[in-house]
Amino acid sequence: MSTSAGAVETTIRVRYADTDRMGVVYYGNYLTYFEVGRVEWCRARGFNYRDMEAQDGAMLVVAEARCRYKAPAYFDDLLRIRTSVSRARRALVAFQYEVENAATGELLATGETVHLVTGTDFRPRSLPDKYRELFGL
Amino acid sequence: MSTSAGAVETTIRVRYADTDRMGVVYYGNYLTYFEVGRVEWCRARGFNYRDMEAQDGAMLVVAEARCRYKAPAYFDDLLRIRTSVSRARRALVAFQYEVENAATGELLATGETVHLVTGTDFRPRSLPDKYRELFGL
Amino acid sequence: MSTSAGAVETTIRVRYADTDRMGVVYYGNYLTYFEVGRVEWCRARGFNYRDMEAQDGAMLVVAEARCRYKAPAYFDDLLRIRTSVSRARRALVAFQYEVENAATGELLATGETVHLVTGTDFRPRSLPDKYRELFGL
Amino acid sequence: MSTSAGAVETTIRVRYADTDRMGVVYYGNYLTYFEVGRVEWCRARGFNYRDMEAQDGAMLVVAEARCRYKAPAYFDDLLRIRTSVSRARRALVAFQYEVENAATGELLATGETVHLVTGTDFRPRSLPDKYRELFGL
Repeated sequence: MSTSAGAVETTIRVRYADTDRMGVVYYGNYLTYFEVGRVEWCRARGFNYRDMEAQDGAMLVVAEARCRYKAPAYFDDLLRIRTSVSRARRALVAFQYEVENAATGELLATGETVHLVTGTDFRPRSLPDKYRELFGL
Repeated sequence: MSTSAGAVETTIRVRYADTDRMGVVYYGNYLTYFEVGRVEWCRARGFNYRDMEAQDGAMLVVAEARCRYKAPAYFDDLLRIRTSVSRARRALVAFQYEVENAATGELLATGETVHLVTGTDFRPRSLPDKYRELFGL
Repeated sequence: MSTSAGAVETTIRVRYADTDRMGVVYYGNYLTYFEVGRVEWCRARGFNYRDMEAQDGAMLVVAEARCRYKAPAYFDDLLRIRTSVSRARRALVAFQYEVENAATGELLATGETVHLVTGTDFRPRSLPDKYRELFGL
Repeated sequence: MSTSAGAVETTIRVRYADTDRMGVVYYGNYLTYFEVGRVEWCRARGFNYRDMEAQDGAMLVVAEARCRYKAPAYFDDLLRIRTSVSRARRALVAFQYEVENAATGELLATGETVHLVTGTDFRPRSLPDKYRELFGL
């Protein structure tokens, strides 16, 4: 995991379970890869997303997700996920993602997720103060 | 969904997402199929497993799961899951499952899951009275 | 499954496996629900997507997927997926989806997937003649 | 990843997607964790399971899987998977697994998978010569 210009990189090894009968990673699994990127972005910024939910009662509920698929990923490929925050407001955070083959550098997919900040009751709230700076607010 | 001699049958259509690059259903997904069989067993007995958790605070926590794979299942196959209770005690319930191809009747997999009855705090408790008879106790 | 004004409806029961620790359906699983909608759209039009791949060597490779999340879905909810073709050209097909709670009619999510027609070698090709009319071409 | 007394260790971070509404890792996902352990066992032995399938046309088809669940795993937990070969014959290989919390050392689950060696046509065959010694034959 490393940080450069605000982006955080993490790697994921494609599992057999991730593939489908086309022989490539099933399209829905990229949203799981994005989640891993997001969680590692938080860790690189110095906090655990788990604690944000458990200790501070703030959840990032997904309002929108998008993925563009450029080239397939295969079983056992090592993927690099590059995650950055594309928008941050008091009650909304958006992440963007690039997935590339770590061996060849080929870009496989790009995506974005938009999240609303809510309490554990799913009601809108603002990002807790301690996280604002971390999200660049 | 139908009941015969205590067994409850339900059908599942294999999804593309369930398959792997071998072209067949990924082995771990049978445990999800078993879950569907279990939930439909409850419904056929006249209660929702969801309510048992939410209203009566009793969970069936998995202690053991086993699956024997006889023949592969393919994308778009219609599967029949036959579920029955193989053991039931105050604080333990076991289900057994048969998965067959609904079109050909071929047996694809058999399995068993063993569950401990717990509260929502994961502590052991007895099955609530109202469910005992339903489980044959 | 039913058809009205070009849209095909199918229902899905939310599985325990589909939920996450937030207590709701994990966001990536909606892409699997879309897949089910797509496959049932094909069946309602009179063909199996499986056969299109296996017999006619044409695959619908996902180029883009989008989902907007309006309200959460919970374990054991019955969902209605409404699927229609939003665009169809010689070598590109797009589907759009609405997911609603079948009991209440509440709209839970909307989405779109864009697919390129390829051979089993992932190379672009045109939709086989026999499928053109079915896709409104 | 390390090797000691024949066992290979690898670590996995629990994803949000892996959890269910009980707040813990869904029971079926342990079979995916076992797969990761198996693939890393191969890598530690000096070969890629992918190559065994692609280049040597030998697959390890799962005939049986078992898991005993001792204690739950939670989102963001780091898990250690300890994998070893428990049986190896010409046409059958069995792996056993221990999953523990990497931070506390608590044992969370144990399991076993039994595999038949087949060709890519799913017909039984012997393990290719080059892999025999690696499996202790």
